Amino acid sequence: MFVLVNLKAYPCDPVAVAEAAADVAEQTDATIAVAPQSADLARVAETGATTYAQHVSPVEHGSHTGSVLAESVEANGAVGTLLNHSEHRRKLADIDGSLDAADRVGLDTVVCANNPEQIAAAAALGPDAVAVEPPELIGTGTPVSQADPGIVEDAVAAAEAVDPSVDVYCGAGISTGDDLEAARELGASGVLLASGVAKADDPRAALEDLVEPLV
Amino acid sequence: MFVLVNLKAYPCDPVAVAEAAADVAEQTDATIAVAPQSADLARVAETGATTYAQHVSPVEHGSHTGSVLAESVEANGAVGTLLNHSEHRRKLADIDGSLDAADRVGLDTVVCANNPEQIAAAAALGPDAVAVEPPELIGTGTPVSQADPGIVEDAVAAAEAVDPSVDVYCGAGISTGDDLEAARELGASGVLLASGVAKADDPRAALEDLVEPLV
Amino acid sequence: MFVLVNLKAYPCDPVAVAEAAADVAEQTDATIAVAPQSADLARVAETGATTYAQHVSPVEHGSHTGSVLAESVEANGAVGTLLNHSEHRRKLADIDGSLDAADRVGLDTVVCANNPEQIAAAAALGPDAVAVEPPELIGTGTPVSQADPGIVEDAVAAAEAVDPSVDVYCGAGISTGDDLEAARELGASGVLLASGVAKADDPRAALEDLVEPLV
Amino acid sequence: MFVLVNLKAYPCDPVAVAEAAADVAEQTDATIAVAPQSADLARVAETGATTYAQHVSPVEHGSHTGSVLAESVEANGAVGTLLNHSEHRRKLADIDGSLDAADRVGLDTVVCANNPEQIAAAAALGPDAVAVEPPELIGTGTPVSQADPGIVEDAVAAAEAVDPSVDVYCGAGISTGDDLEAARELGASGVLLASGVAKADDPRAALEDLVEPLV
Repeated sequence: MFVLVNLKAYPCDPVAVAEAAADVAEQTDATIAVAPQSADLARVAETGATTYAQHVSPVEHGSHTGSVLAESVEANGAVGTLLNHSEHRRKLADIDGSLDAADRVGLDTVVCANNPEQIAAAAALGPDAVAVEPPELIGTGTPVSQADPGIVEDAVAAAEAVDPSVDVYCGAGISTGDDLEAARELGASGVLLASGVAKADDPRAALEDLVEPLV
Repeated sequence: MFVLVNLKAYPCDPVAVAEAAADVAEQTDATIAVAPQSADLARVAETGATTYAQHVSPVEHGSHTGSVLAESVEANGAVGTLLNHSEHRRKLADIDGSLDAADRVGLDTVVCANNPEQIAAAAALGPDAVAVEPPELIGTGTPVSQADPGIVEDAVAAAEAVDPSVDVYCGAGISTGDDLEAARELGASGVLLASGVAKADDPRAALEDLVEPLV
Repeated sequence: MFVLVNLKAYPCDPVAVAEAAADVAEQTDATIAVAPQSADLARVAETGATTYAQHVSPVEHGSHTGSVLAESVEANGAVGTLLNHSEHRRKLADIDGSLDAADRVGLDTVVCANNPEQIAAAAALGPDAVAVEPPELIGTGTPVSQADPGIVEDAVAAAEAVDPSVDVYCGAGISTGDDLEAARELGASGVLLASGVAKADDPRAALEDLVEPLV
Repeated sequence: MFVLVNLKAYPCDPVAVAEAAADVAEQTDATIAVAPQSADLARVAETGATTYAQHVSPVEHGSHTGSVLAESVEANGAVGTLLNHSEHRRKLADIDGSLDAADRVGLDTVVCANNPEQIAAAAALGPDAVAVEPPELIGTGTPVSQADPGIVEDAVAAAEAVDPSVDVYCGAGISTGDDLEAARELGASGVLLASGVAKADDPRAALEDLVEPLV
């Protein structure tokens, strides 16, 4: 099971969350990745935690001010990247370009989308994984098992029909171990979460509760 | 065979091109659509020509200043729309939203993209057609048969694998009847062209030459 | 006094609103402009109403699919355009480019912004007018006189300091004649409104009430 | 005199350039800032060089995946930021928002623009400095003194008229000490350059030549 903790622009201590993630990951079979601000990538990677960028730009070396170059992200310790998060929607052509950039330096890729049609489209671009973020679950605290679980199953089926090698993650409605278990039963092989860990009083305890079904 | 003449922002007379398109379409089995500036849609539709918008926005009725509402486009005579043209790349989520908007009022949809992976992604969103615009052919005057014809065949295969009901058009490198014939032999069931007709001294003659293989 | 009725993407009858605007404008010294969907510009202009586009693109004649060409808007009867509405925020460079496009064909220009600093910036680009849209007034129905009237006065002062020839309009919190009167007393020489007229059961009566202080 | 070396997405060693910048700055009165990829900010700042971000996002702490949070940039050693570079044009409202974000944590701000009107608009937003990037000079290697020097003088006058406290830098056409001298004579109090140093075989020698007029 893959677990990604997206630190967004939260006022958390990225190193403390990363240290917790690294420790908790050792207690289970799960991979626990942490996606900090790009300026924090190196500090997060130094903890030993699996480190993801929140985005890389669809550019190569060259005159691209303000971009996030895949080579730079990789050189600072990232091993993967999110793309097209619901808070950072990108052009179809640019998602494709960012996937090319990530592939160039060996970053794992997770493309987010919010319904089965877009999940199928994202899968067709050849990422390592797609993450379905049902809009009705984003940021609400509603567990995926209590909202529309069908959308996760439909997303799994949609990605499978296009490219069975693409993993499907559940990108919203995940806070607890029960939510993770529910996502797994719906066919997801990973989960994305954010505030449930990043804004927790005790991120380590939140992560331990989350991965409890995997221990 | 479907032929779409994209008038872009060219300084042509949209009504004259539309009248020529309507007349020439009658002489053949081809559908010849004309895509003018949105403000010109009604005048173009009044000629009897098949009329397309160059874009519709991913919005419903509401507070959306500066958008192109599908309902408005349809009320002014359009029967279809281009989406995601290489000069107007859109977010994946917005292409999906624009397809929903077009479906709501019954507009036919053609989603452009410039390589087989993006064509597969576009096809996964469920449009009526996709149009492959190989970058090396856009605006160069290079005929598709002389440039990389493999990209058209690959696009046809990619769309077919995702959804066989989606038509594939060739969206660049088309000026003459020979080009149209070449596109058809590569598996395309339609072509998009622009300056070859819109900027021709005699648009009617240009269209007649184009559809000559279809008469 | 200048009054602009922004029809946005509302499900109203643009011709009926335009006819009411043309009639009511004759009863007063106010100019009453109507800004419909671009596809509706010609039909609105035919009523004799002062017709505005909701946006024009920063492009010249050429290969620009999906753009709104100033020449096309003007040819279909528009005499002015909004730019940078709060629902259609644009890049600084593109607002400048759209002003150039509008100037090329003689369209009057109203650049929207939502605080005095941005109003000063907009005024520096040399439009005919700027419109301040205090965020706390947009779409709330709160009259400008009851919310923060200081922002309108500050906007008037900010524009005056940069370029005294630029008119300042009040772009939110306007529904009634009292609101228009309040805006005028705060230094605005025009108002923008939308749902108060466009979604009124009787747009003519709504306009008559609005301009009552001007009769 | 202020000198900013923009490393863009170049394949240079950011630490080596920063070390050279820190050393050369000590030999003169100039401030020499280095603007690397955001993931490289901490490593660049550790050299002691004045460190700038290439961009910060118009956001506060919160749910903003893929953004560049001013707090994060500052925590990793940046003391300033570019905004609205010609390769990263932003919405007027977002430049304003990014300036607010930068002010919140005390970052110096340089807003780029490419003609005197946009320079005046940028100055009206209250940055510490504006940088004029005449399009005919960007990336061409043409020295500012040989191209249209009037645009720099006009930019200086335009910013002065709006807010005399805003510095004006010359953001293109700078490679050598002669170019820096020419920019200073045209009224600029700083220069931005990129490939002339970042892609030089010997960045230190390139910087020494650049600041030679200031020693």
